[in-house]
Amino acid sequence: MNIGATLDRAIEQRVRDSFDQQGLMALLGAQMVGVTVGQVVIRLPFRAEVTQHHGYFHAGGTSAIADTAGGYAAYTMFPDDSSVLTVEFKLNLLNPGQGDYLEAIGRVVKPGRTLTVCQLDVWGVFDDRRIHVATGVQTLIRVQSR
Amino acid sequence: MNIGATLDRAIEQRVRDSFDQQGLMALLGAQMVGVTVGQVVIRLPFRAEVTQHHGYFHAGGTSAIADTAGGYAAYTMFPDDSSVLTVEFKLNLLNPGQGDYLEAIGRVVKPGRTLTVCQLDVWGVFDDRRIHVATGVQTLIRVQSR
Amino acid sequence: MNIGATLDRAIEQRVRDSFDQQGLMALLGAQMVGVTVGQVVIRLPFRAEVTQHHGYFHAGGTSAIADTAGGYAAYTMFPDDSSVLTVEFKLNLLNPGQGDYLEAIGRVVKPGRTLTVCQLDVWGVFDDRRIHVATGVQTLIRVQSR
Amino acid sequence: MNIGATLDRAIEQRVRDSFDQQGLMALLGAQMVGVTVGQVVIRLPFRAEVTQHHGYFHAGGTSAIADTAGGYAAYTMFPDDSSVLTVEFKLNLLNPGQGDYLEAIGRVVKPGRTLTVCQLDVWGVFDDRRIHVATGVQTLIRVQSR
Repeated sequence: MNIGATLDRAIEQRVRDSFDQQGLMALLGAQMVGVTVGQVVIRLPFRAEVTQHHGYFHAGGTSAIADTAGGYAAYTMFPDDSSVLTVEFKLNLLNPGQGDYLEAIGRVVKPGRTLTVCQLDVWGVFDDRRIHVATGVQTLIRVQSR
Repeated sequence: MNIGATLDRAIEQRVRDSFDQQGLMALLGAQMVGVTVGQVVIRLPFRAEVTQHHGYFHAGGTSAIADTAGGYAAYTMFPDDSSVLTVEFKLNLLNPGQGDYLEAIGRVVKPGRTLTVCQLDVWGVFDDRRIHVATGVQTLIRVQSR
Repeated sequence: MNIGATLDRAIEQRVRDSFDQQGLMALLGAQMVGVTVGQVVIRLPFRAEVTQHHGYFHAGGTSAIADTAGGYAAYTMFPDDSSVLTVEFKLNLLNPGQGDYLEAIGRVVKPGRTLTVCQLDVWGVFDDRRIHVATGVQTLIRVQSR
Repeated sequence: MNIGATLDRAIEQRVRDSFDQQGLMALLGAQMVGVTVGQVVIRLPFRAEVTQHHGYFHAGGTSAIADTAGGYAAYTMFPDDSSVLTVEFKLNLLNPGQGDYLEAIGRVVKPGRTLTVCQLDVWGVFDDRRIHVATGVQTLIRVQSR
C-alpha cells in the first residue's frame, strides 16, 4: 500500500459518484477536493448555515466531513463489489472551527479485509494560515454490496 | 442532581434561545423536543437532504444532533455566565440510520465544575418501533462567557 | 437476547477457563466475580502494585479490567468455535480510582455476527459507597478459532 | 513548542521520579526509555505475566503503557506546580500484540493551559521489524498540585 499515491481513474470515479449521492454533503455544500489511494480530502466552505451558536463552524459539520473523508479513504482500497460502513469514530475538537473553509483529511492507518482504521484531521483554512480544528480515529467495515 | 427533572423555565429558555442560533440545526431541520435537567432530546426528520449514498440517515447528521443534545444537556447544569464547548466525542454506529425521524438523547453521566461527561444515544423512530442507531460518550468543558 | 440472564454452565466454564489463561489478570490479582449472558464483572483489589504516582488505582489497571470484562461479555454470546478480539475501546475517567477494590462491568449493548458493542463501567467500591470511576464504549470482533 | 526536542534536565528528572512512583509500571516491568519535550516512550518487555489468553500481549498492558506515555508527554509541558490526570483515551488495536517488547509513544498534538491532547501509538518490536499494535487519542487535564 502506498497511501497518497495516484488512484486508478475508475476507482476515483466510483468514489466521486458515491459522494455525489450523499444528500447531506450537498446540503452542507461540501466538496470532495482530493482522492488518492487511502486518502480523501473534503472541503466545507464557511457560511451561516453551518455554524453553531457562537458563529463558529458547528462540530456536527466538522464531524460530518471528517467521517465522510475517512469512509471514502477506506473505500478507495476496497474491491469493486464492496461497500463501506462507519463502525465508530472519535473526534477531539482542538480549536474553535474557524476559516474560509474547513478541510477534512481521512487517511488509512491500517487497511484490512474486514476492518479498516483511519486517522481523521480537520483544518480551518485562512489565506495565510491553517488551524488544527480536530483530530480523531475511525473504524470502518467492508460489506458486500447488494 | 436529578437527571431528567423539570428544568427552571429561565434556563430552558436560555437553552432554546442558544439552539435557535445554530445555523446548522436549522439547515438540517433539527428540532429540540425535550429539555430537562441534564438531559436534552433533539429530533431530525427524515428527508433526502440528510442521507448518505445508500439513502439512510448520514452518520454526519446522526453525530451532529448527538453532539448538540449532549452539549445542551451539560449546559442545563451550568451557571448563568457560562458557555459550553465539546472537548471530544465518540460514537458507535450500531444500526443503519432509518426511521421517520432520528431522536438523539444527551444525558449527563458526570457533571463537573470544569468537565462534564455525557452519554449519547440516537434512536431511529418508526410508528411502531425504535432502532438503536448510535451510542457514545462525550466530554464537554465549561467556559466563562464573553 | 436477555442481558444479565443465567448463562449455560458449559459456556460459563469456557469463559472462566479463558480468563484463567490470562497472565496479566493473574499478575494484577484480578478476579472474575460475575458471568451472565452478555455481562461480565471483574474485580481488582487495591494494593500498591496497581497504583499510579498519587497512590490511586492506575488508569492502566482500570482499563485492563474494563477491556477484559467487555471482551468476555461479548464472548458469552458467541458460538463455540469463536474467539474474541478487542477492535477498540474508549474510556472516560470520571473520578480518581479509589476503593477497597475496583469493579468493572462489561455489558453487551449490541450483539452481532461480526461486531459486538459493549458498554464499560468501572466502580470504586468501599464498604459503604460506590464511586463511578470510568465509563466507556468498546467494539469487539468475533473470529473463527484456530 | 518543539515536540521531540531535548528536555530541561530538571523536568526530565521530575518526570522520571513520578514514573518511578507508579506501582503498576513496576509490576508490569515497564521502563521509561525516552523523555523529550511533549513526547515520552515507554517499553514493556514480553513475558507470560503480561499476556492474554492466546499468549499475545494483553490489551490492558498495551493501554496501560500508552496511557502512561501520553500522560507524561503532556506533563513535560506543564509548569512546576502542576499534576496531570487522564480525562479519557481511545485506543484502536490494529494488530495482535507481539514482539520482544512493546513500545508506547505518547506525543502532544495540542498543548493547552487546561487540556492537552496526545496521540498514542504502540509498536511491537522484534529484532528486524516493528508492528503497529495500537493507535489512539488521549485527553489530559492539568491540575494544581496539592
